[in-house]
Amino acid sequence: METDDRPSGEGNPTAKAGGRSRSTRDFTVARAHAEADETLAAILSAAAAAFREHGFAAASIDDVARRLGATKGLVYHYYRSKNDLFLDVCQRGMAIDFAAVAAPAASRDRAVTRLRAMAEAHLTTMLQHNDFQHAILQAVARHLGGPATGQDGERLAGVIAARDRYEMLFRRTLAEAVAEGDLAGWADASLTGKAFLAVLNAPVFWYREQPNETEADRRALVRELALFALRGAGASEAIIEEEFGS
Amino acid sequence: METDDRPSGEGNPTAKAGGRSRSTRDFTVARAHAEADETLAAILSAAAAAFREHGFAAASIDDVARRLGATKGLVYHYYRSKNDLFLDVCQRGMAIDFAAVAAPAASRDRAVTRLRAMAEAHLTTMLQHNDFQHAILQAVARHLGGPATGQDGERLAGVIAARDRYEMLFRRTLAEAVAEGDLAGWADASLTGKAFLAVLNAPVFWYREQPNETEADRRALVRELALFALRGAGASEAIIEEEFGS
Repeated sequence: METDDRPSGEGNPTAKAGGRSRSTRDFTVARAHAEADETLAAILSAAAAAFREHGFAAASIDDVARRLGATKGLVYHYYRSKNDLFLDVCQRGMAIDFAAVAAPAASRDRAVTRLRAMAEAHLTTMLQHNDFQHAILQAVARHLGGPATGQDGERLAGVIAARDRYEMLFRRTLAEAVAEGDLAGWADASLTGKAFLAVLNAPVFWYREQPNETEADRRALVRELALFALRGAGASEAIIEEEFGS
Repeated sequence: METDDRPSGEGNPTAKAGGRSRSTRDFTVARAHAEADETLAAILSAAAAAFREHGFAAASIDDVARRLGATKGLVYHYYRSKNDLFLDVCQRGMAIDFAAVAAPAASRDRAVTRLRAMAEAHLTTMLQHNDFQHAILQAVARHLGGPATGQDGERLAGVIAARDRYEMLFRRTLAEAVAEGDLAGWADASLTGKAFLAVLNAPVFWYREQPNETEADRRALVRELALFALRGAGASEAIIEEEFGS
């Protein structure tokens, strides 16, 4: 790790925030943090890809290191075990999801518009971070297999709880849209929320970026699945026209 | 294996078909086949449960034998490897799916009615055979991870092809319902088929039979998800009322 004494800002986003003069040591620490963050992000992406390709049980730290072009030692510097790494992939995946829908969820639009925007934001993000979403589904499947115990069990339960909160965010917005008269009602809000997210998560099973794929292809995919989800939740054709009309 | 010389029929469904008199040896062979079928069915159910709980990579023949209350030897008598067993679980799962929707798919009703009945049949069956459905999703995920080679690769490709045919059955029926004017059209028939099946397969991630669950609870779940799928595909509220109205 080299010392960095360039002036604030350049190539060092974490140093940009504070306006006051900083010692060389401050810069070094900030730079080290930024580099560690980048390394971590790279490890998590490589791990998500490995877990997706082989599944949790068959994936190995060796494979993660190979994808990074690094040594196992680097990975073990950050993570004490494969499970620890898996749980961090899942946590990062949930953080990505929450970040994607935060703005549309907080907007002042009517509920059905927020719902449409949240659905499109989720889909757009999941095409980019498909592997992370796949890890979360593996975590849900593991959780179904019976509660794990100990520290890892608690962290796994934490991932499941985050996923439940995410689903609740959609369920609340669905309920508001019904209250505003823009969606037909349904008998079971929980099932509707699960079906809604099943549509939004469907690409995890078959989506792979194609070599000749364009931005327009992805937008069409996002639009089509968001439209299915909104219709499924009981949006009338008039609402569909307002939300998706050309 | 004991000799069976009871008259045709009783406790021996395979002997029932032919009306002509049979030798004791015929009965013995038929009974042996029936017992082998029962053993196979039990092995496949135990294996499906093991693959679901641990995932393919972490599941073991030992675990399957334990669930059966049998020895590993019994399982190896039928299957040369865990992978062989996994592929048979997937094939059986697809056979169960096809059998479930065969009657509604072949009926003379309008397409949207067939589609509703197929959706309900799929959901009802998947609540009963959730573990098999989960194995199929694992197979799809493994297939995504890159094509396997050799004999097992061919069989895995066979499972994927069966799943594609199953999806095509729904896609054809969806297209017919559009042609008959009972569903709104959509831009991408393939995406709509995938979204439709994503809703029908959603329970694989969270459904577990509850101790106090009733037949009515399951019917309500089936109805709610079939309704979401039909609406998602663009059924008007008039059609929904006709198909699901009380």
